Amino acid sequence: MRNQFVRQLNDLNIKLLKMGAMVQEIIEVAVKALTTQNLELARKVYELDDDIDNIELEIELECMNLIALQQPMAKDLRVIGTVLKIITDLERMGDHAVNIAKVVLEIGEEPFVKPLIDIPKMAKLAQAMVKKSLDAFMNADIELAREVANDDEAVDEIYEKIYTELINKMIAENTIVKQATNLIFIGRYLERIADHATNIGERVIFIETGENIEIN
Amino acid sequence: MRNQFVRQLNDLNIKLLKMGAMVQEIIEVAVKALTTQNLELARKVYELDDDIDNIELEIELECMNLIALQQPMAKDLRVIGTVLKIITDLERMGDHAVNIAKVVLEIGEEPFVKPLIDIPKMAKLAQAMVKKSLDAFMNADIELAREVANDDEAVDEIYEKIYTELINKMIAENTIVKQATNLIFIGRYLERIADHATNIGERVIFIETGENIEIN
Repeated sequence: MRNQFVRQLNDLNIKLLKMGAMVQEIIEVAVKALTTQNLELARKVYELDDDIDNIELEIELECMNLIALQQPMAKDLRVIGTVLKIITDLERMGDHAVNIAKVVLEIGEEPFVKPLIDIPKMAKLAQAMVKKSLDAFMNADIELAREVANDDEAVDEIYEKIYTELINKMIAENTIVKQATNLIFIGRYLERIADHATNIGERVIFIETGENIEIN
Repeated sequence: MRNQFVRQLNDLNIKLLKMGAMVQEIIEVAVKALTTQNLELARKVYELDDDIDNIELEIELECMNLIALQQPMAKDLRVIGTVLKIITDLERMGDHAVNIAKVVLEIGEEPFVKPLIDIPKMAKLAQAMVKKSLDAFMNADIELAREVANDDEAVDEIYEKIYTELINKMIAENTIVKQATNLIFIGRYLERIADHATNIGERVIFIETGENIEIN
């Protein structure tokens, strides 16, 4: 029985890593759609998000079956509870990627009001945070989990920079307010994606140490 | 055993309604803090959100214990799975209320660039949607669940109106871009709150009919 439980938990972890890889991909595709103004690619983001929703549902059902059939002990129940929370964070990241894609479709082929340098930088950081936070969970690596929180500060700083820059640009030049607002939105979505990766890191710290850091 | 399960499920429903009432309150307080520019009230939103996070955790643990100890059958398992999803939507609404409060603190005592009429209207609608969606869940009332989706369209329309109005205002008057952007953000948060209520409605329809409407 215990062996079977360990095997099922292992299966669950593999699916979770797969979902994490899908989320990294959707962030990459959404931001690439933006920087290349590729509307076809933006539409692909919606499909990728459907896949993410499906795997979330799959993992969730597996978690519930695991709880119902194996009646896990306290610590194992906590691990499964954490998986249920992690997939929620991952799923929300997918939603934010869709939000980015929506803006890409809205901007269309209109020339950018500024070169996009910081947004791709935020995206790269956010993708790395997703990977790091899941690795931290798999290996119960608290140090790695704490790194995610540090990365989040870097992301917040870039967002603040983008925000200030675009607000100033709008003040200087009223014809760009619509696109500038849209680009602020994209910055905000990436910042939220990073927050969700941070949540995962914080859940790892909580489950390993009982230390309760505020989760967004 | 079955009786005990029914009783525990009943307890769970009561807590869920309580959480719903808390979410209605936090929306009300956040928007009141905005319209009255009451920074004290804005800070209270953070406390209310902590309470919401705590009751979410409580309900979640209860769900997992219920699954582990009672090993519910397929339909009951689906109901508990739905509760787990609903609390996630409710918790996200709380987060968006905090986002609103953050903007309130940022605007501070600066006079509004326009009278706030549509934002309170959106908030009222969103609050009613939360109540309606939970009532629909409790009473397995599909008609009521469908009403929530209709209300969501009304909310989306108001948001579009606010957005267009504020963008035009920014184009006309560059000194207001910061506040106008902030007010667009608030509109967006309320729109997201309504989306989450819609999700709950859609989950009710799904659990009762198997009809899978897209959930955001």
